[in-house]
Amino acid sequence: MIETLPLDAMVDPAALAARLADESAADIVESLNEEAPEVAAAILLSLPSERAIEVLDQPELACAADIIEMLPRDRVASYLSGMSADRVTDLFKEIEEPGRSDLRARLDAETRGAVDRLIAYPEESVGSIMTTEFVAVPATWTVRQTLDHIRVVERTRETVYSIFVLDPRTRALTKAVPLRRLLSGDPGDSILSVAPTRRPVVLTADASRDEAARLISKYDLLAIPVVDEANHVIGIVTVDDVIDAMIERQTEQVQRFGGMEALDEPYMDIGFWQMIRKRAGWLCVLFLSEMLTASAMQGFEGELERAIVLTLFIPLIMSSGGNSGSQATSLLIRALALHQVQLRDWWRVALREVPAGITLGAILGFIGIVRIVVWQKTGLYDYGEHWMLVAATVGTALIGIVLFGSLAGSMLPFLLQRLGFDPATASAPFVATLVDVSGLVIYFTVALVILKGTLL
Amino acid sequence: MIETLPLDAMVDPAALAARLADESAADIVESLNEEAPEVAAAILLSLPSERAIEVLDQPELACAADIIEMLPRDRVASYLSGMSADRVTDLFKEIEEPGRSDLRARLDAETRGAVDRLIAYPEESVGSIMTTEFVAVPATWTVRQTLDHIRVVERTRETVYSIFVLDPRTRALTKAVPLRRLLSGDPGDSILSVAPTRRPVVLTADASRDEAARLISKYDLLAIPVVDEANHVIGIVTVDDVIDAMIERQTEQVQRFGGMEALDEPYMDIGFWQMIRKRAGWLCVLFLSEMLTASAMQGFEGELERAIVLTLFIPLIMSSGGNSGSQATSLLIRALALHQVQLRDWWRVALREVPAGITLGAILGFIGIVRIVVWQKTGLYDYGEHWMLVAATVGTALIGIVLFGSLAGSMLPFLLQRLGFDPATASAPFVATLVDVSGLVIYFTVALVILKGTLL
Repeated sequence: MIETLPLDAMVDPAALAARLADESAADIVESLNEEAPEVAAAILLSLPSERAIEVLDQPELACAADIIEMLPRDRVASYLSGMSADRVTDLFKEIEEPGRSDLRARLDAETRGAVDRLIAYPEESVGSIMTTEFVAVPATWTVRQTLDHIRVVERTRETVYSIFVLDPRTRALTKAVPLRRLLSGDPGDSILSVAPTRRPVVLTADASRDEAARLISKYDLLAIPVVDEANHVIGIVTVDDVIDAMIERQTEQVQRFGGMEALDEPYMDIGFWQMIRKRAGWLCVLFLSEMLTASAMQGFEGELERAIVLTLFIPLIMSSGGNSGSQATSLLIRALALHQVQLRDWWRVALREVPAGITLGAILGFIGIVRIVVWQKTGLYDYGEHWMLVAATVGTALIGIVLFGSLAGSMLPFLLQRLGFDPATASAPFVATLVDVSGLVIYFTVALVILKGTLL
Repeated sequence: MIETLPLDAMVDPAALAARLADESAADIVESLNEEAPEVAAAILLSLPSERAIEVLDQPELACAADIIEMLPRDRVASYLSGMSADRVTDLFKEIEEPGRSDLRARLDAETRGAVDRLIAYPEESVGSIMTTEFVAVPATWTVRQTLDHIRVVERTRETVYSIFVLDPRTRALTKAVPLRRLLSGDPGDSILSVAPTRRPVVLTADASRDEAARLISKYDLLAIPVVDEANHVIGIVTVDDVIDAMIERQTEQVQRFGGMEALDEPYMDIGFWQMIRKRAGWLCVLFLSEMLTASAMQGFEGELERAIVLTLFIPLIMSSGGNSGSQATSLLIRALALHQVQLRDWWRVALREVPAGITLGAILGFIGIVRIVVWQKTGLYDYGEHWMLVAATVGTALIGIVLFGSLAGSMLPFLLQRLGFDPATASAPFVATLVDVSGLVIYFTVALVILKGTLL
């Protein structure tokens, strides 16, 4: 890696390019990301064309669209034709008009066709991460013919490690042959002699990225073919794309679970007001919902005035409900994502969460009662003449609230999935808010029952 | 996939095995996971030996250790010798003595040696997911010699898509050649003619799994060599292993962020009491910490009695601090994991979170004040003669608490990393608890300043 140069230093792009030429594309990207777009563009121009294409092919290159807009148009067109179609498509989404139309017109017909098709797929679909550079051969070919073909096209294919065998007449996909099996085949034999007996695992372009990740991981594949209704291969999803998508998705999930809209950019790069917008939205929704607690408290104002001792435990009791809810939600989000439970299993989960909630609530309730007894007996605090009833109220309310929290927290992901949302949009703060209002009501209702005629 | 048979049905393992023989290993595993271990063992025995080995090689096979203990020992030994060393090691960790020592003695010397080495690596390290079946050739070989070698060893290697070129004298790693480049080389040329100029990306056995995932994803690799101090290749980590590790890690992270110990087993399979233990631990820790809120409230008892109106907003104000903290923590956990920020950047982050916290707090504070004004003016509720001061208290406290939440939530992951913990052990409930106590103190302090001489 090269040292970062101060912004006002004279950078000689040609010298830098010479130093970078032997680095891996990923390391060149890291160095370019530290430069201003105009410097990065100059360095790219000084690199051998093949290296420049490799660098532009990396999704990690920041400001790639800005860099491209600074390069001579004909150079860009030749770069783009060498890049993988999925990456060109991503870039086209970022380049502004009129540059985009101009560049599109300069592309070779094949790349242009691929980009036009790929750009139409929605963001979350397999279509948006698939690429069109794969190896497909007719089932009539021999092992030798296929190997010779791979040698010729190797440089222009995203992967050559999966070879798709097509019906010579209909061009429908019949087999997927791993390159390693092809290598050990007899050169004169038909390619079908090294094909596995089972049908290939396939995806449709409208399947979700999560589904692609699940299949790649389940079957330990390096690429999955994407097929249309006629079983024609229209693209492939490679393991690299899936890993990138998984990392992006994990960031989204953690941020959503933390109670905010997912950021599209790294924390340090995103603009201040953009970040505020992503955070303020959910924060306001949660704040407005949580206002119901103020209304609930207003409703119990009489009780509060008569038994101020009850207010002491409000934060403690409410947070316990939120915490147990957050646990249950995180468990079920993952169980649903990994297909460990299905939508129809909701009642099985409920049947587990009821005893779990009661047990956990009883544990906390016991600790809560011990705390009150110890403080009272050692004289640390005086909870009044009815302290035993107060302790009973706190203990009982904790069982009810933790039970409610576990149940609500575990059912929320099912409900979201049922309504067609991603279960992972359920966030810890959302569950806590949901449980807080009901927690207050449970607490005061228990208090009314236990303390009627004494404190209340 | 086959239908699930009722447990008391007569299962004919041979018939089932015949139906399964052409399925992919992953699908056979799915079917076996639905059977009792004794049935699964009988089915395995009826499968061709090569298929049985493939099936046992899948980490997704549940109860693999139980199944193995039901098979004849000599059959197991021959299966294990055919499996990848990393998987055998995982199985050995689960098999109980004296079976384990007996099986170890029956392994061929090579497998035994590999397992003895691999079993010593800690759970989170690259050593624990690496395997020892890779292709390495001396730098003196030609392209043809290497291809011939690959054809011979293909079946016994985890991957042949990366070929490691060793110094013929020291056996140190000098190059890593992707198979696709090897294929397009001239058969008579030296293997070095197709090797990339740059040095191979390597890992050490004590590196973390996260580091393996980061490098595989950054350099788009299918395998990374693991080297010792002398730069000898002692194993490889493949992209399959990394994906499995990533999925496992994501589940752990979501569960930890939800405020519990990560479960080692799927939600539906884990025993009830084991699950309670994983959940109760953190729930109790959080409960005990949250007890400080009761102490804080006791400390402000006098203020509470004089201004009961203040209690109405306690849940609302406290939850806002927790929510903003949870957002900031989730942002920084991911930013640190993706190397977007380093430990030394903590002050840059703090400088961003201070204005962010003030802005977000001001937004919520404004909404809070509007709420009080509207309720007061429309007669929905009477906050007393000093209602304007109450509104000012709520608004000001929200700024302070959201600021504190954002700052504490963003600094916590740095603190954990500094102390040598995984930043992802910071959980939403933990941050909320941390912020709750300080939130109460901030609220009552603001109240004391604003309401002194009127309500207080």
